[in-house]
Amino acid sequence: MLTVKAYAATSATDPLVPTTIERRDVGADDVLIAIRYAGICHSDIHTVREEWGEITFPQVVGHEIVGEVAEVGANVTAFAVGDRVGVGCMVNSCRQCENCAAGMEQYCLEGNTGTYASVDRDGTITQGGYSTHVVVDKDFVLRVPESIPYTAAAPLLCAGITTYSPLAHWNAGPGKKVAVVGMGGLGHMAVKIAAAMGAEVTVLSQGLSKKDDGLRFGAQHYYATSDPETFTTLHSTFDLVINTVSAPLDFDRFVSLLRLDGVWVNVGAPAEPVALRLFSLFTNRRSFAGSSIGGIAETQDMLDFCAEHGIAPEVELIGADQINDAYERVLASDVRYRFVIDTATL
Amino acid sequence: MLTVKAYAATSATDPLVPTTIERRDVGADDVLIAIRYAGICHSDIHTVREEWGEITFPQVVGHEIVGEVAEVGANVTAFAVGDRVGVGCMVNSCRQCENCAAGMEQYCLEGNTGTYASVDRDGTITQGGYSTHVVVDKDFVLRVPESIPYTAAAPLLCAGITTYSPLAHWNAGPGKKVAVVGMGGLGHMAVKIAAAMGAEVTVLSQGLSKKDDGLRFGAQHYYATSDPETFTTLHSTFDLVINTVSAPLDFDRFVSLLRLDGVWVNVGAPAEPVALRLFSLFTNRRSFAGSSIGGIAETQDMLDFCAEHGIAPEVELIGADQINDAYERVLASDVRYRFVIDTATL
Repeated sequence: MLTVKAYAATSATDPLVPTTIERRDVGADDVLIAIRYAGICHSDIHTVREEWGEITFPQVVGHEIVGEVAEVGANVTAFAVGDRVGVGCMVNSCRQCENCAAGMEQYCLEGNTGTYASVDRDGTITQGGYSTHVVVDKDFVLRVPESIPYTAAAPLLCAGITTYSPLAHWNAGPGKKVAVVGMGGLGHMAVKIAAAMGAEVTVLSQGLSKKDDGLRFGAQHYYATSDPETFTTLHSTFDLVINTVSAPLDFDRFVSLLRLDGVWVNVGAPAEPVALRLFSLFTNRRSFAGSSIGGIAETQDMLDFCAEHGIAPEVELIGADQINDAYERVLASDVRYRFVIDTATL
Repeated sequence: MLTVKAYAATSATDPLVPTTIERRDVGADDVLIAIRYAGICHSDIHTVREEWGEITFPQVVGHEIVGEVAEVGANVTAFAVGDRVGVGCMVNSCRQCENCAAGMEQYCLEGNTGTYASVDRDGTITQGGYSTHVVVDKDFVLRVPESIPYTAAAPLLCAGITTYSPLAHWNAGPGKKVAVVGMGGLGHMAVKIAAAMGAEVTVLSQGLSKKDDGLRFGAQHYYATSDPETFTTLHSTFDLVINTVSAPLDFDRFVSLLRLDGVWVNVGAPAEPVALRLFSLFTNRRSFAGSSIGGIAETQDMLDFCAEHGIAPEVELIGADQINDAYERVLASDVRYRFVIDTATL
């Protein structure tokens, strides 16, 4: 067992605090990663505040992890000490179900093992990336291309793949009109990736305060959803909408923006049920879908795609003592666009 | 103007009564059809009872219409007097929008003109098929293949195309597991068509009372949704589900039956919003869609497909004086499987 530094939640209401946790010994299939940076995802906050269900405390969160390989097990040949690597939202899956067999470990029928707050194979609770080290099975370790700085790579492991996967799956590209709802951590990545794929990108944000950024990130159009005119102007327009907002929307109004065979994809979600009139879907034969992160092979594709196209998230680097403040700022949408923790400060 | 016999609703609460209505003179592009049979669709009931919104009374409904051409306008070359023809759920559209241009008149961006209770081009309210004659623009008239009896052809114009269209669009066929929810008028057609397309068909019905019928129609499996075990057994099973039930379901529970990339298609719908947890869609990257009837070319394809495969609905032939009773029996799910009115009795 390795005792390593971390920043943990001790209850659903108290601030996170510095602590130490145990990491398992490096097994034959394991990679020990010396974490350099970890991104802060809204999911981290939902989890520690138990908005998505009860968890076991203390809990270390963080599933946008990058660093260097510090040690490898006997069966590990794909990685060597010193390699630049990353870990995203999951660290294991059953590897046997039809979804795992199809390279879609995120949809493992047994449930994938989340990077934090999940029951690991050994019965312990997984602990995430707000920590100096993590031990991960080699099959769930990603290679970070040289051209992507560590700080930029971290948010790609969740915000990047969560938006890349539906954009790729639903064929964002030349000739396709893609809208991105919400331009926060996920949304700003969706804009950059969809634009790099060649789609005509529109941002739908509550207001216009981030309009200059949106256009700089590659959007061609930027509309305020607080303006009712937006819904008239853009009626039946989009082939694909990526909704990154986790609060409930007036979905009937928003899906009216989809054209024939348009697909609305939710990647953020409130825990409570949403309301939707089926007649809203009859018009234009619309689909209302969900998408969850991406598979391991697809995550590697995303990293390589971002390296090739020079895509990087906009990050604000913070020290560990700023994590609690950062949480409040994420909730206030006061971040442009992703907080990344320097784990040297733990 | 032609004065013709019909059966009309005079209010949202009174029984339908015999009456006469006016049909427009046969214009250059029009076809006058001597109606032989008209099917009773649940939509007829929703409409006259104003469950889908206010309408203007008196109102003749019916959008499953078959008969013979009695007269054609000067510009009509595709049809001649005596031809076997049909009319479905729409009698016009804008013909200019991108959806009409794509042969998807049902999704006309201006709104298609419904066969009844819609505002026609001349400002009058369209009147449907519970009548002896109807005048329809030639472009919205379907050809009924010789091998399909009139009584069987009627329900194809709504129940047939409404289920054929999503089955064709979402590629029901060999290797695909298709479930049909509800085995009424639409559902029993969905089973027959999906089976003819080569899919492995499962019926999901409240109980097992129609099981023998379902298997005879081509289903390979038949489950009761009143049995909780059904949802355990069939978890993550189907590529495609056609939901023909217009009452609200526990959608979170039902969509759990979709496998990876499975699509849930609603063709029936309650007017009120339905509730759905987005997390139900994240699992298996599920889609929740709507589909509305079909385009004119596609409706002709459906009729030809049914002729080729010998597919016919199960009908119960009634006289006009049984229409009100038939409505009650439709609401009580006491029909196997579609009422068809013999218009000679009007």
